[in-house]
Formats: sequence, C-alpha cells, structure tokens
Amino acid sequence: MATAATITGLDVVDVRFPTSRFLDGSDAMNPDPDYSAAYVVLRTDGDRADGSPLDGHALAFTIGRGNDVQVAAIRALEHHVVGRDVDELAADLGGLARGLARDSQFRWLGPEKGIAHMALGAVVNAAWDLASRRAELPLWRFLVEMTPEQIVALVDFRHISDALSPDQALDLLRAAAPGRAARLADLETNGYPAYTTGAGWLGYDDAKLERLAAEAAARGYRQVKLKVGADPAADERRLRIARGAIGPDVGLAVDANQIWDVDEAIARVNALAHHDLAWIEEPTSPDDVLGHARIRAGVSPVPVATGEHMHNRVMAKQFLQAGALDVLQIDAARVGGVNENLAMLLLAAAFGVRVCPHAGGVGLCEMVQHLSFFDAVAVSGTTEGRMIEHVDHLHEHFVDPVTVVDGRYLLPTGHGLNGRMHQESIDRHRFPDGAEWRAGGAS
Amino acid sequence: MATAATITGLDVVDVRFPTSRFLDGSDAMNPDPDYSAAYVVLRTDGDRADGSPLDGHALAFTIGRGNDVQVAAIRALEHHVVGRDVDELAADLGGLARGLARDSQFRWLGPEKGIAHMALGAVVNAAWDLASRRAELPLWRFLVEMTPEQIVALVDFRHISDALSPDQALDLLRAAAPGRAARLADLETNGYPAYTTGAGWLGYDDAKLERLAAEAAARGYRQVKLKVGADPAADERRLRIARGAIGPDVGLAVDANQIWDVDEAIARVNALAHHDLAWIEEPTSPDDVLGHARIRAGVSPVPVATGEHMHNRVMAKQFLQAGALDVLQIDAARVGGVNENLAMLLLAAAFGVRVCPHAGGVGLCEMVQHLSFFDAVAVSGTTEGRMIEHVDHLHEHFVDPVTVVDGRYLLPTGHGLNGRMHQESIDRHRFPDGAEWRAGGAS
Repeated sequence: MATAATITGLDVVDVRFPTSRFLDGSDAMNPDPDYSAAYVVLRTDGDRADGSPLDGHALAFTIGRGNDVQVAAIRALEHHVVGRDVDELAADLGGLARGLARDSQFRWLGPEKGIAHMALGAVVNAAWDLASRRAELPLWRFLVEMTPEQIVALVDFRHISDALSPDQALDLLRAAAPGRAARLADLETNGYPAYTTGAGWLGYDDAKLERLAAEAAARGYRQVKLKVGADPAADERRLRIARGAIGPDVGLAVDANQIWDVDEAIARVNALAHHDLAWIEEPTSPDDVLGHARIRAGVSPVPVATGEHMHNRVMAKQFLQAGALDVLQIDAARVGGVNENLAMLLLAAAFGVRVCPHAGGVGLCEMVQHLSFFDAVAVSGTTEGRMIEHVDHLHEHFVDPVTVVDGRYLLPTGHGLNGRMHQESIDRHRFPDGAEWRAGGAS
Repeated sequence: MATAATITGLDVVDVRFPTSRFLDGSDAMNPDPDYSAAYVVLRTDGDRADGSPLDGHALAFTIGRGNDVQVAAIRALEHHVVGRDVDELAADLGGLARGLARDSQFRWLGPEKGIAHMALGAVVNAAWDLASRRAELPLWRFLVEMTPEQIVALVDFRHISDALSPDQALDLLRAAAPGRAARLADLETNGYPAYTTGAGWLGYDDAKLERLAAEAAARGYRQVKLKVGADPAADERRLRIARGAIGPDVGLAVDANQIWDVDEAIARVNALAHHDLAWIEEPTSPDDVLGHARIRAGVSPVPVATGEHMHNRVMAKQFLQAGALDVLQIDAARVGGVNENLAMLLLAAAFGVRVCPHAGGVGLCEMVQHLSFFDAVAVSGTTEGRMIEHVDHLHEHFVDPVTVVDGRYLLPTGHGLNGRMHQESIDRHRFPDGAEWRAGGAS
C-alpha cells in the first residue's frame, strides 16, 4: 500500500491516430475516422511500492475533429480533483462520481450526456486507475474484492430507482455470490469470449474482407461483424462473401451505425436476415428507445444490439423497460466512467439482458474488459451469449494491452484500468504538433 | 439587399453574468447559476443597405462553469462556415444545418446532443441572424415569407420520418394557410401571451415571492411559475403564498428542474395538486421519455411540461409518440438552431401538443419569440393555451430586447434574431478578464 498522497495535477493531451489513411474503422456514418483520445493523467505526490509514481490514466475516445474540445472539457473538471487526498478519494469513488455529475453549473452542458459527460467519465476512470493501482490490483479484481454494499454505494440511483432500487441491486449482487470462486477459476483458465469487427470495415474491398473473415474464423473468434448500411446490393454481396468465408457455425453480426430511419431499418434488416444474423447493431438513432422497440418487433428473430452511443444510465433503463434491445453494448468511455457502467451492468442483469461491450476504438478493449470480467464473476454470473468486441489495431500503443488468444480475452493481471499509453506513443501522436502529424497528416 | 459577400470570420466570446450573487435563476438543481453566453459572431466582408457591417450574431446559453468549453466547441466549427459565400449560405440554410450535423468526426461527440449540438445550434442561429438581417426582416417574418416547400427543405427528417414525413409536414403547413393574414394582424395588435418565472426562484424569501407574484398578476401575466422540489413543506407554503397573491384566475405552474425520481415525482406533484397547477415542469430526468409518460398518467389532470433540456428532435418525437407531455418547451439555444426547432414545431403540431418555449436565461426570450410568432402564423395557427416564458432580467444587454406589455410579447420589428448584445456589455462581462469579473466576481 502506498503512503499518504495528494492529487497534484490533472494533465490532458490531444492524441490522434491517422486511421483514416487506411479506412480502418470506416462505417456507414463515419467514413474517415481518425481514432483519437483525450488522454488524462491524474498526478499525485505519492509513489507506489515499487518506487514508480502513483498516478491514474484514462481517456475519452473520439474519432478526430473535436478531440480538442473533449480535452478542454476534461480540463474544466480539474478543480474537482486537484488538491484532494488520495485515501479519501479512493475510499469514496461513488461520492466522486456523484459530485462531478452534480456540479450544478457544468451539469447544464449535458445533463449527463455528450462531451461534458465523457469528460466526467474520463476523470472518474482515471481515479479508478489510480485507486486500483494504489491497491496493486487489476481493476476487475479491485471490484471483485468489494462487498455488495460497497458496490451499491458506487452507483448513482438518481433517475433509475423506478427500475432498480439500491435494495434490489443489493439482492441481485448477493444472489450472485454462490459460485463466484468457480466462475473466477473458469475465467482464469478460459478467458472471456471475444468477437471481431476488424474484418468488416466498410472501406475494405471484397478480397480483403474475405481474407480477414476467414482468418478471424481460423483464429477462433466465434463471431465476426460487418459494417452495413450503404448500398443494399453491396451489403448482400459482402454478407455472402463473409458467410462463405466463416462457414455456418461462426456468428455473423451486422452494424448500421445509426444510418437508417425506423421503417427503413426494418426493411433493410429483413432483407439481410437470410444470412442468419447474430444481431443488428445501431439500426437507427441511439436516442430512439421507441424506434428500437419497433425495429426489434419488426425484425424478430434477429436480435437488436445498441449502446456505444447510449449516453447514460437513464437511457439504458428505458431501453430495458421498453424491451428495445437484446444486447446492451456498454462502452468504457461514453458514460460517466466505471460507476455508471456498474449501474448499467446491474440494470441489464435485473432485466436479464446480455451485455456485449463496444470496444472498436483506441483503448476501449483495454478498459472495458475489466467490466465484463467483473460482471461474469459478481453480477450476471455468466458469459453465456456474451462477447467483448475486439479490434486488433492500435494496441501496440498501450503499456499493458489486451491479450486475445483463440478468440478469448485473457484475464488482465497488471494493475489498474489498462488505459495507459506508452509516453512515446503519446508524444508521437500528439495533435497537431507530434511527429505523426507534422509529417503531413490532416484531421 | 446587400451586395455579394463572403464569411470572413467566426468570433466567439465567453460572456458571463454574475447572477448567482443575487440568487436570480436559483432552482432545486441549480442553486447558484451565473447566466452565461458562448457568444458567436459570423463576420463578412459585406455591408447592409444602411452601411453597417453585414454579420450574424447568436449565442449558446450556459449557467457558468464550462462556458469556456462551449466556446471551444463553437470555434471548432469555424471551418464549416468561414470562406463560404453568403448568398449560397442564405439560400440553403437547411443544407448548412445538415452539413454541420453530419460532420462525421465531430458527430461522435454527440451525436446531436450536449455541448457539440449546442455549438452547432449557435452557428446555425448566427447564420439565420445573418440571412434575415441581409433580407432586412425580423427572423419570424423571414420565415413567414417562405413557402411550405422552403420550410420543409430546412428540416432534417432523419430519424423522425416514422412520426413525420416531409409530405406530412407539407400538408400540415398547407393546411395552416387559410387565416394567416388574420392571425398575423391579430399578433400585430395583441402580441403573444407571456408567463413569468421571475417571481418564483427558489432562493427568494417569502416576502419577495409574495410581492413579485402580486406584481406579476397586476402587470397582466396570465401565469406565474414557481420553482419547487426542495423541502415539501416549503413548496406547500410558497404555493399558498403565491396563490394568495395572484388570486384564482391566474395560472400557477411549478418547476422541479429534474430533481425527482419517477415515483417521487408522482407523490410530490399530487401533494401539491390542490393548488390548481397549470403544469409540472421537468419533474424528472429530461432523457426519461417513459418516466414522463408514467408521471403524466400518475398526476393527471396536472399537465406535464418539459423541453429546455430536450436535446434534439428524436427526443421530441418520442415524448410525443409516448404521450409523455402536455406542453413542449422548445429552447432557442439547446438544439440545432432554428432548423431543428422548426422540426419540433412541426412535430408538436402533428401531435396536437401545445408549445410554450423555455426562455429563462440570457437572450433566450429575444431569440425564441420568433419561433412562437412563426408558429402562430404558419404552423399550429393558434396561441390557444400557449405562452412564452418571460424573465425580466439581463434584457438591458441586448441591442433590440423583447417588449412585453400587459403580459404579452409584442411582435419584434427589428431585423434578425435579436440575440445581439451591446458591445459594451460583452466587453464588461467577458470572462475572466472583463471589468465585472476583474472586480472580484467568481465563477
């Protein structure tokens, strides 16, 4: 355990990767993303047991333009954390998250949505990284070692108590206690199932799609995902190619990235349903609870998945109440950090809905894996039908990247949230003055 | 008509008013707001007929901390407008709004919500100010002179077409054509009804509340609004005082500013219903469509109002589809500008729901009045049951402030959107270096 320490600074860096040069990440709504991070570091005057500085790292994920605004939003929260005692902060991470959400002036900018909320989430996640590294534990294990009462104290039940009260959450966590040790042992041995999106970006040509899909199946992924939503004939052709490459036993999901209106979504999905779709992801606006409910009814039995743009727990609550999705895709960096994702895991468990995290981005696989491992041990208590998205690029920039073997995430064993980048990667990709951008990139 | 011109610059200023010093604007969720504006100016190289510079002014409204982030977000949109030809821009304001909303990288920061979307709205509104001043018309008249086809072309129907198609919108506008001239004549003579919130801020003591409520009734307001949601006994006492001061014939609305959960809202509203409430405003999270629907059913016959934090047309669509509100409170600066507010006016008309704009803030009365006047002439075709909020402070900072006489807004006759501040006010309240803040204020 580290000695007493105070938070001495909050640094934020605009980091951008020129992914648009190769159409990595391209989809129907986002043809040319430059995967980016508003990268935050909470500095302290303390050290860890090994003598390294005690600090906390996390990031908000964006896809390029506007990452500077995300950086400014994180910086605007500095006064909430700088000067605080690390022991007190780590002992009440629920209070930190609620305090940030209830900054009455800043709250106007959301409330609890968009840039302001992602900023809050980045700061909260950096505090979790700090607290779990201070405890010398991976974040998932830091959570697993908490009591149900401690977990419930982390959650802000404001505006969700009609669907899940603190007492109900407590009951749910207690009910998951039997079998924890066996589930943990299974996860240590077998990891957590993954699926891959890397084969199916919209900007890849047919030959590349076919090759990558076949490789994914050969590498043990039990599901691949294709971007759809541009030309209907192209969707049909690409799905045929992918299904041919992966065979009948590997799942084939499609992702429209919000491009359709409600009626259009129903028609387009039904036209593709003969490919035996594992799910349709983001068929329409991420704000449209009622629209998703109509789509789900209209495309049954194709499951409906959404969540990477679900901006807070109040939206998650409604999607579940309305029966508007089959798969909840939490995102480590979209909402108010670990705390709000715990609320969403608890809500999903209460409604018996699968959680398959979104992780297409930079650092998202690294961070979100902790939530799925914790869920499997202590909340839903199962990996049945669940998978974490995996996209195999940009991991080389992380100090402790994910390990995916035979289509499964292995339990992370390092300390913290794993969102920590190599300093050299940060320096090189700093926008606009890093070497990668001075060399002639554009964003 | 001005000669050809090009947009040469986009300026943004962080302007803040120290309203928290007097508890103006205080409510259950926002105890100490400093009403602020991320103030935007589109500059051109053209002149107006009178020789003054042709430019466009608008603002995003915030309540203090984070206004600098809002400023940064507006600045990030500069490249969408600077260098554009003013004639072309003014001829396709629908294209401008859609182009901004579909910036694929920036969109990730919302989509269409929060800081990013308010930034878009401010730029779009500044372009409307520019276009209507160039036409030498008040904005409402600039809209009134458009054909139904032109109005429909301004609206982005993406993600709302399941509730309102372009053809349905066209039918609706055409159906409102009969009687336009008579309605306009009536508005020119009688203005548009107003209600006041100025009496009922939560931070005001009972004596001030009683005096201001009585004054409001005497000044011809047909409705006053009180902030509630703190101590139940205080709510009861304050409502009794207000009702005593205004008598039985003036409407008495209450506003909880999102403080309650769903079940709590139902109980608290029903406990106050004996005061004959004109509406309950923002009973819970502004994102909670299903929660508002439950509250509305649970507090009937008290009408439910919300909208000042309704972040886009997709939310408006759902509130209407779910029967979750009786009163839609559009806000000039929350959504994607005039264009998205036109979508919301059309949706409300299609569902037969009243629109009573939110205008508690700075510059919001000035800007939003145009939308209500246009609605009364050309969309809903009525002022029945409708009122524009009026708060009587900070208007002195505007070049062409609203005129409210005998509880009614008079038709604005100046050119543009009326969001233009005196340069002296901008300079004095610029944060943090204006005289008002150097003198010792804090935000």
